[in-house]
Amino acid sequence: MSVSIAQYRQSIPALQNKTYFNYGGQGPMGINALGSIQAAHQTIQSLGPFGSAVNQWMQAEGEKTRRVLADDLGVAPQTIVLTEDVTVGCNIALWGMPWNSGDHILLSDCEHPGIFATVYELQRRYGLEVSVFPHLSQLNSANPVATIQAHLRPTTRLVVASHILWNTGQLMPLTEICQLCHDRPRPVRVLSDAAQSVGMLPLRLAETGVDFYSFTGHKWCCGPAGLGGLYVSPEAMVDLAPTFIGWRGITMGKQGQPTGWQPDARRYEVATSNVALCSGLRVAIATHNDWGTTEERYFRICQLSSYLWGKLNSLRSVHCLLKSPPESGLVSFQIFQGGDHSPKLHQTLVTYLESQQFYLRTLLSPSCVRACIHYFSTESEIDHLIDAIERFLQSHITD
Amino acid sequence: MSVSIAQYRQSIPALQNKTYFNYGGQGPMGINALGSIQAAHQTIQSLGPFGSAVNQWMQAEGEKTRRVLADDLGVAPQTIVLTEDVTVGCNIALWGMPWNSGDHILLSDCEHPGIFATVYELQRRYGLEVSVFPHLSQLNSANPVATIQAHLRPTTRLVVASHILWNTGQLMPLTEICQLCHDRPRPVRVLSDAAQSVGMLPLRLAETGVDFYSFTGHKWCCGPAGLGGLYVSPEAMVDLAPTFIGWRGITMGKQGQPTGWQPDARRYEVATSNVALCSGLRVAIATHNDWGTTEERYFRICQLSSYLWGKLNSLRSVHCLLKSPPESGLVSFQIFQGGDHSPKLHQTLVTYLESQQFYLRTLLSPSCVRACIHYFSTESEIDHLIDAIERFLQSHITD
Repeated sequence: MSVSIAQYRQSIPALQNKTYFNYGGQGPMGINALGSIQAAHQTIQSLGPFGSAVNQWMQAEGEKTRRVLADDLGVAPQTIVLTEDVTVGCNIALWGMPWNSGDHILLSDCEHPGIFATVYELQRRYGLEVSVFPHLSQLNSANPVATIQAHLRPTTRLVVASHILWNTGQLMPLTEICQLCHDRPRPVRVLSDAAQSVGMLPLRLAETGVDFYSFTGHKWCCGPAGLGGLYVSPEAMVDLAPTFIGWRGITMGKQGQPTGWQPDARRYEVATSNVALCSGLRVAIATHNDWGTTEERYFRICQLSSYLWGKLNSLRSVHCLLKSPPESGLVSFQIFQGGDHSPKLHQTLVTYLESQQFYLRTLLSPSCVRACIHYFSTESEIDHLIDAIERFLQSHITD
Repeated sequence: MSVSIAQYRQSIPALQNKTYFNYGGQGPMGINALGSIQAAHQTIQSLGPFGSAVNQWMQAEGEKTRRVLADDLGVAPQTIVLTEDVTVGCNIALWGMPWNSGDHILLSDCEHPGIFATVYELQRRYGLEVSVFPHLSQLNSANPVATIQAHLRPTTRLVVASHILWNTGQLMPLTEICQLCHDRPRPVRVLSDAAQSVGMLPLRLAETGVDFYSFTGHKWCCGPAGLGGLYVSPEAMVDLAPTFIGWRGITMGKQGQPTGWQPDARRYEVATSNVALCSGLRVAIATHNDWGTTEERYFRICQLSSYLWGKLNSLRSVHCLLKSPPESGLVSFQIFQGGDHSPKLHQTLVTYLESQQFYLRTLLSPSCVRACIHYFSTESEIDHLIDAIERFLQSHITD
């Protein structure tokens, strides 16, 4: 059954009272997805909440959800860990590596602060070397593969690079990065923060060679907050140890004693979570697939973000970060006042826009404003946003 | 506004089609708590789901929830970490200690398998010593404080002991254990698994001296699965490092770079979770407080579990694990067939009972069946359970 964009938008409560451009922060949920969470709560209470029947039902919910996510990513269900969010998935990969003192981690300078903080704590605990390769400073000229190559060391064990950069919206050449890293004399693992790619980008992850790919259901998939996942390649699983550990990750003997790890990626799952969220995510993903293939949706996202990018660039005092249309739904831009831009001015714009029911956000590195486009965004929303930004510029920017 | 037990029971969907004794597995949710989760989802979609207003609302939800939990535990809100479940809280404590090779961890033999598995992995990674103090083998005669004292070593850094044992239902003398551990020449920290105590036991946690106290909202509090907490004492926080790390735990500078930890226990929180669950837990706790104080509820729990314990002991072929009524809502018992009991027979009983709409569970260490009593359980439920067990015994046990 095919769903038109207009029909789908009508079923999204969040879109009824605002013009929304924060898909990279959190995607809005449709009433079907919201309803399925409520229905799952009712099922849990009716069957249990604790007992043989409901416990089997919950296990099946996990299996179905791993399968749907695996299909979306182009991998086997046995490689999918269900997590609470992207950051937890990154932490599973980062803490589980067999670190030795002196091992080197290389990160892009566009990674999320939470990932930096984790890597610094690993550095402190295990005596690691950490360095950052520049991407931001050569935003429109960089070849990230060459940059990474120049920064790899014989001791490098892990490269951390987002698939789509949350600040600039750039698509990183994941396959080439993985190839470079795996072709080293001692192969280097690659951890990709996929917060901005899963639900937006067509993925055949197994073909990229990536080792760890951490994502969430609550951004571009428009599922509930609190449910995400981590892909661990079969090769990387061999020496990635579980860190946070609980009953979901272990096997047990006849006296209930731990006897080992689950044979698949469930070994990295911990304990009780809110299983009702699973159906919410599956329904959200199914709704997108009802509209069109991932390729069709991504094509439309790029069309619309290119349209926004062009309109923004045509505004006086506005510069998009990228010199060409982004290959993603993330469009970041700066507002110049007297030849310079500032976080304060960007925040003033975002606050003004939210007061007019346009939802965007500021970022601090680089200081900019980010507008996100989903496949169910419309040209008319973009036109209205541009009008609102123009009104702001007229009242706030004096040349 | 006071709520009678009959009224409260009518508002719990799970109790309408079954006789429930699995509170130690998961507590049933009331319609008010379920409704508040749905309302929170609607608020999030209406205000956001991402933007200044909704982000402020979500932060306030976290603060309110930490405050309610802190009140319930008798501690300051700044000591409360919101977690996904008990096990995650235990992992935060276990992985965050400043371990050195040769340090010793002492656990009771009644801890959960997930905790054992975590401690074994810590042992492997950091070269720790691990030993177990016997409690189960001296179930009805043990003085746990003396046993722990006999097993402490000069190198012991941590003792792990549940507050209420999930298998036997025994209440451990937490204050005395903490006193013993803290009075050592080099103080020993105490981690208490509070899965079975929070929501059941009146707590003035600050007075016990416990260092780490990990709990969940989805068992005795009857909140949603997926939301729990960890108490970290101000003293223990000084050298407990965050392990899994994300934006919720860190402070950030002007360029969004990590600059340090949050000043309070939020430093151990990671990233996005399902904030809608917060109000569900608060409403659940408020409903219990509407009925009576924690002391009144605990008194009724003990009255009813004593009643069940007595009835069970009066049955031919049934032996309760404890020789005196439990000081908790957990009543564990064994079924003897030809002088012996077996996990298989226990499972047959539980399966039979679930087919009759009585919800209990088996445990493997020791092999037994566990029935849980909450303050809103009724004598009539207990009488019906006893009748059902008698029917089972008549058809399955031949002397």
